Amino acid sequence: MIYFKNDYIEGCAEEILNELNKTNFEKSVGYGEDEYTKKAIGLIKKEIGNSEVDVHFLVGGTQTNLCAISILKPYEAVICVDSGHINVHECGAIEHSGHAIRTIENINGKIDIKKLVELLDNTSSFHMVKPKMVYISNSTELGTIYSKKELIKLREVCDKYNLYLYIDGARLGSALTSKSNDLTLKDINRYADMFYIGGTKNGALFGEALVISNPEIKPYFKYIMKQNGAILAKGRLLGIQFKQLFTDNLFYRLAKHENEVALKLKEVFIKHGIKFYIESDTNQQFVYFPKEKYLKIEDKVVCEIQKEEGEYYIVRFVTSFSSKFEDVEAFDAILTQLD
Amino acid sequence: MIYFKNDYIEGCAEEILNELNKTNFEKSVGYGEDEYTKKAIGLIKKEIGNSEVDVHFLVGGTQTNLCAISILKPYEAVICVDSGHINVHECGAIEHSGHAIRTIENINGKIDIKKLVELLDNTSSFHMVKPKMVYISNSTELGTIYSKKELIKLREVCDKYNLYLYIDGARLGSALTSKSNDLTLKDINRYADMFYIGGTKNGALFGEALVISNPEIKPYFKYIMKQNGAILAKGRLLGIQFKQLFTDNLFYRLAKHENEVALKLKEVFIKHGIKFYIESDTNQQFVYFPKEKYLKIEDKVVCEIQKEEGEYYIVRFVTSFSSKFEDVEAFDAILTQLD
Amino acid sequence: MIYFKNDYIEGCAEEILNELNKTNFEKSVGYGEDEYTKKAIGLIKKEIGNSEVDVHFLVGGTQTNLCAISILKPYEAVICVDSGHINVHECGAIEHSGHAIRTIENINGKIDIKKLVELLDNTSSFHMVKPKMVYISNSTELGTIYSKKELIKLREVCDKYNLYLYIDGARLGSALTSKSNDLTLKDINRYADMFYIGGTKNGALFGEALVISNPEIKPYFKYIMKQNGAILAKGRLLGIQFKQLFTDNLFYRLAKHENEVALKLKEVFIKHGIKFYIESDTNQQFVYFPKEKYLKIEDKVVCEIQKEEGEYYIVRFVTSFSSKFEDVEAFDAILTQLD
Amino acid sequence: MIYFKNDYIEGCAEEILNELNKTNFEKSVGYGEDEYTKKAIGLIKKEIGNSEVDVHFLVGGTQTNLCAISILKPYEAVICVDSGHINVHECGAIEHSGHAIRTIENINGKIDIKKLVELLDNTSSFHMVKPKMVYISNSTELGTIYSKKELIKLREVCDKYNLYLYIDGARLGSALTSKSNDLTLKDINRYADMFYIGGTKNGALFGEALVISNPEIKPYFKYIMKQNGAILAKGRLLGIQFKQLFTDNLFYRLAKHENEVALKLKEVFIKHGIKFYIESDTNQQFVYFPKEKYLKIEDKVVCEIQKEEGEYYIVRFVTSFSSKFEDVEAFDAILTQLD
Repeated sequence: MIYFKNDYIEGCAEEILNELNKTNFEKSVGYGEDEYTKKAIGLIKKEIGNSEVDVHFLVGGTQTNLCAISILKPYEAVICVDSGHINVHECGAIEHSGHAIRTIENINGKIDIKKLVELLDNTSSFHMVKPKMVYISNSTELGTIYSKKELIKLREVCDKYNLYLYIDGARLGSALTSKSNDLTLKDINRYADMFYIGGTKNGALFGEALVISNPEIKPYFKYIMKQNGAILAKGRLLGIQFKQLFTDNLFYRLAKHENEVALKLKEVFIKHGIKFYIESDTNQQFVYFPKEKYLKIEDKVVCEIQKEEGEYYIVRFVTSFSSKFEDVEAFDAILTQLD
Repeated sequence: MIYFKNDYIEGCAEEILNELNKTNFEKSVGYGEDEYTKKAIGLIKKEIGNSEVDVHFLVGGTQTNLCAISILKPYEAVICVDSGHINVHECGAIEHSGHAIRTIENINGKIDIKKLVELLDNTSSFHMVKPKMVYISNSTELGTIYSKKELIKLREVCDKYNLYLYIDGARLGSALTSKSNDLTLKDINRYADMFYIGGTKNGALFGEALVISNPEIKPYFKYIMKQNGAILAKGRLLGIQFKQLFTDNLFYRLAKHENEVALKLKEVFIKHGIKFYIESDTNQQFVYFPKEKYLKIEDKVVCEIQKEEGEYYIVRFVTSFSSKFEDVEAFDAILTQLD
Repeated sequence: MIYFKNDYIEGCAEEILNELNKTNFEKSVGYGEDEYTKKAIGLIKKEIGNSEVDVHFLVGGTQTNLCAISILKPYEAVICVDSGHINVHECGAIEHSGHAIRTIENINGKIDIKKLVELLDNTSSFHMVKPKMVYISNSTELGTIYSKKELIKLREVCDKYNLYLYIDGARLGSALTSKSNDLTLKDINRYADMFYIGGTKNGALFGEALVISNPEIKPYFKYIMKQNGAILAKGRLLGIQFKQLFTDNLFYRLAKHENEVALKLKEVFIKHGIKFYIESDTNQQFVYFPKEKYLKIEDKVVCEIQKEEGEYYIVRFVTSFSSKFEDVEAFDAILTQLD
Repeated sequence: MIYFKNDYIEGCAEEILNELNKTNFEKSVGYGEDEYTKKAIGLIKKEIGNSEVDVHFLVGGTQTNLCAISILKPYEAVICVDSGHINVHECGAIEHSGHAIRTIENINGKIDIKKLVELLDNTSSFHMVKPKMVYISNSTELGTIYSKKELIKLREVCDKYNLYLYIDGARLGSALTSKSNDLTLKDINRYADMFYIGGTKNGALFGEALVISNPEIKPYFKYIMKQNGAILAKGRLLGIQFKQLFTDNLFYRLAKHENEVALKLKEVFIKHGIKFYIESDTNQQFVYFPKEKYLKIEDKVVCEIQKEEGEYYIVRFVTSFSSKFEDVEAFDAILTQLD
């Protein structure tokens, strides 16, 4: 069986596993106040070139988004594209926490500045919820990425309308190591008020590092985490993992590998005449897969049907830190047999 | 000054005011357990021909929607059109109470069955919020109304997908007395699990009567009201008003008057070549008003610009229980001067 | 039947009713942006001698408390006595809005500074909810009142611990006109960050005036109201009532009357050897009523059993703006027959 | 340094670590739908002798309590002792999720039936929040445990008042293997509607197994978890850990070891004349530690001051799966030097 289903099908990278083993019987304080966590925070601050940010480690993406967006006042809303993870795949977590999401139609998974400004200009008075945060993902749900130019433009709109910019970085590693990327982690921190660096989908067992640079958002964030059940008792597990991710560029190396396997996969799709649903250089690839053909491979390849359009399934293929080039070659062979 | 701004610009109908005066110094128990409230409940039950329903009186529309939708479980969502009052004009009240709203593009302010079914069929698994209620308004935000056939169809979909149907009746009086209407209050109750009869916009000082027929929703509703600050200490004020509204058909008479003035207004628009933004037979009329012309009347007529399209403003004119035919004649005269 | 059950058994004071009648058919804008509301706000600002405060009108007490406490951040708690209205009689409205209530054992319905400081000193770290507001009522649930000295002391503690002081003034009129009172409305505003002036229990049909002096709390409060369904469409109804209450000292006159009838009632209790459960000079009187005796009056007098202690019921008698001295005399006569 | 600070100072038991290593590079589906999770659920069902229960794995205790209590309706409250974890140490998580907690004074950390019944009998009408769940911990926050007789009595009260009984089993292992215990996991499941088996404090890296037997509570629980960010992407990590805990009695063996070290510690306290604050046979020991003496050991022993009483600190000592008898001996030696 070949797996291209998602980027959380295995455990963690070897470098992380080794460190978890090595430190298992050490004693330390709980709730993220241990030395490993401090070290990991230091490494992240160094990587983004800013020692003033606050860094918090959380267990998963929905939990991180939920806590991050909880900094809003009750009448403040977050804006995102209709395809945004918080809008579709978090079982109403944001609304459940009391905040409305106002959506804009996505363009290739990304937010369109013109539509954003239009929404903002059509908002007024206490009858309508007050937009206060823009949420984007990089890479997006469709595998696309934001350019530096786009991010700067978005920042300008946020400044003009007094909005926070929050970046969901569940797949930030893949975005930043994509061949078409021109952003650095420093840039992400510069233009966002808050963002997170995804570990779960980038070779950690679990864990996301939330980075807060806007001083308005910083105070008492640990309280928000605690009351959402988001502080791990053995917090050092998160510290250890992120310490490893930011040692010897492991974070980037794992992500880059994902992308390289994905590019190889793209070549295979092209070779076999399978059209792309969207152009992506990151670890998520979306293609028009002829239904008939799909039925012949589904017992050999694990991937995910998103929806159907006529004779095609739109299918998502995802590579992970543990994907192998051999998997792509085997996939190629399977398709060759069908041609 | 001529007022067509909204349907809550005056106090209440004379019949109601008189009764409030007459009963002012009577002593009674609080929180809606008085005799007037019981009498009003009896009259409403009689009018809808069902003695098994629960009837609760609340102060305003947003409050009523908020309480009604609070019967959902935390992970259950309400579906409505993008133009729905709960989605646009309640400052995120529903989301603040913890529930997601999933929206469908409106067709003339109404919900489209095909789009509804599509949304329902594309929902599954715990990653997505679970649709459990359909919210519609009758008349809608655009003054349009549902036909009996449409309501039956909607009920069928709700039955099939195990959804509650909730009807916001802020302007139910105007809908039910509209010349194109084929529904009765009995029908509304038959096809909805819960609905409210609007008093505020139909000649009361304030007040909405929420009618619950589905036994699943009934238990402990007063608790929901109380914890949302929605139980009036001097609850009899609501009882007295609704008792009057359902005595001698006052509710329908006031609504019918609104519609008649609105139809007269329509004739004036037609006479002066002002095009309709949408076709409505209820007390809200939306027209394309030439901007230039509008600037010349805005110090004489109070109405509400909704948005602009090229050389036009989309303007809403609303008639109320207290609107006079003379107001329409005066408006006609103003327009004649401009022709 | 003689009524001492509560202070919301009748409609409203004649001066208010007349004004509601007089203005009923005037046209005005909705949602509290009308001229009457502005006038009422001006009169209240004048009365408290501070033109910088924000004044909002709401419909009822639970609603007002709910909105007021909603200004807290999600992890912030409100402190009150165990007998506090928000802790016992609002059906969990505050917790439902997301905020914990931390309670202190009451001393005669009032908060004890020593216990408050003890609670505050034993609070720390993100494991515990963060106290940020102290809630008191004046008069309290037991009819007692705060002295100026007590209020100043409480303010000092709030300042030291960086807490908001919020005063529930459902019966503020009765407190401020009590013979043992040494506070003015100016004082209330000076020492509290936010408080409300109760109308419902002081001769209005309904309505509470929330006064916010702390600039941190002011912004966007209307949004909080709207999303809690707490903005009345015909907002002028509140403006008209409070305009009347603060014209010719009506607010104080009505309250003073309540207290005078209550003092008369006290004399009757003393005369008949009925002991007080608590010493109160306001419109709520709590007495130990011999059970046997109570059973003989309960078909003639409407009052409220709070609990039982051995051979006694603890019974609450409440006077209102509409209570009559004749009622007290009749009550006296009933008791005399039993002696 | 000797550690008796808490039971989450190390990683996990060797048997668990080995299995995590062994399975790390296996591929599996996410979100707890993998084979390891299924196997773990099967083992737990077998252990409690009931195949009809639902079992869900969550990451931590606060998260589990938060999700479990979220099954209540908005106006339903949970009852617990004043010292309950949800009342004191979860940063208002339960209230933040919208539910009030009604507290009863604890007796040795446990709920007193008489006080419980008193609270229930004094609750009525929509003005008060509706009690619907009793929350207890076993072992309690003070290390005490419930007897079978006590649990049966509590169940009877819950049945009579139609309440759910929910048991927080963060330290259930220690309770069930305590020498004074007469309950089994089967009993816990029989008398509770829902309970959790704590992994974090019993030798797992993290993880709690929530067991739901009441069919009213079962439906859609995964949705509640998802919207609280409580579903781990690599869910198998929880499955693997609990599979190990319920293989070869590891869960009980680890807990029993904790207790044995704790009993050894008790002997040391007795030997050195240190009095117990409370009598406990589980892994938490609370003693009156002379302040002067404490200052002399605090650089050698890590434990936790709870509060002070005169010349004493009330200090908590906690043993864990990884505590060693040598640690107790070393502690004994330190105290001997001070005698």
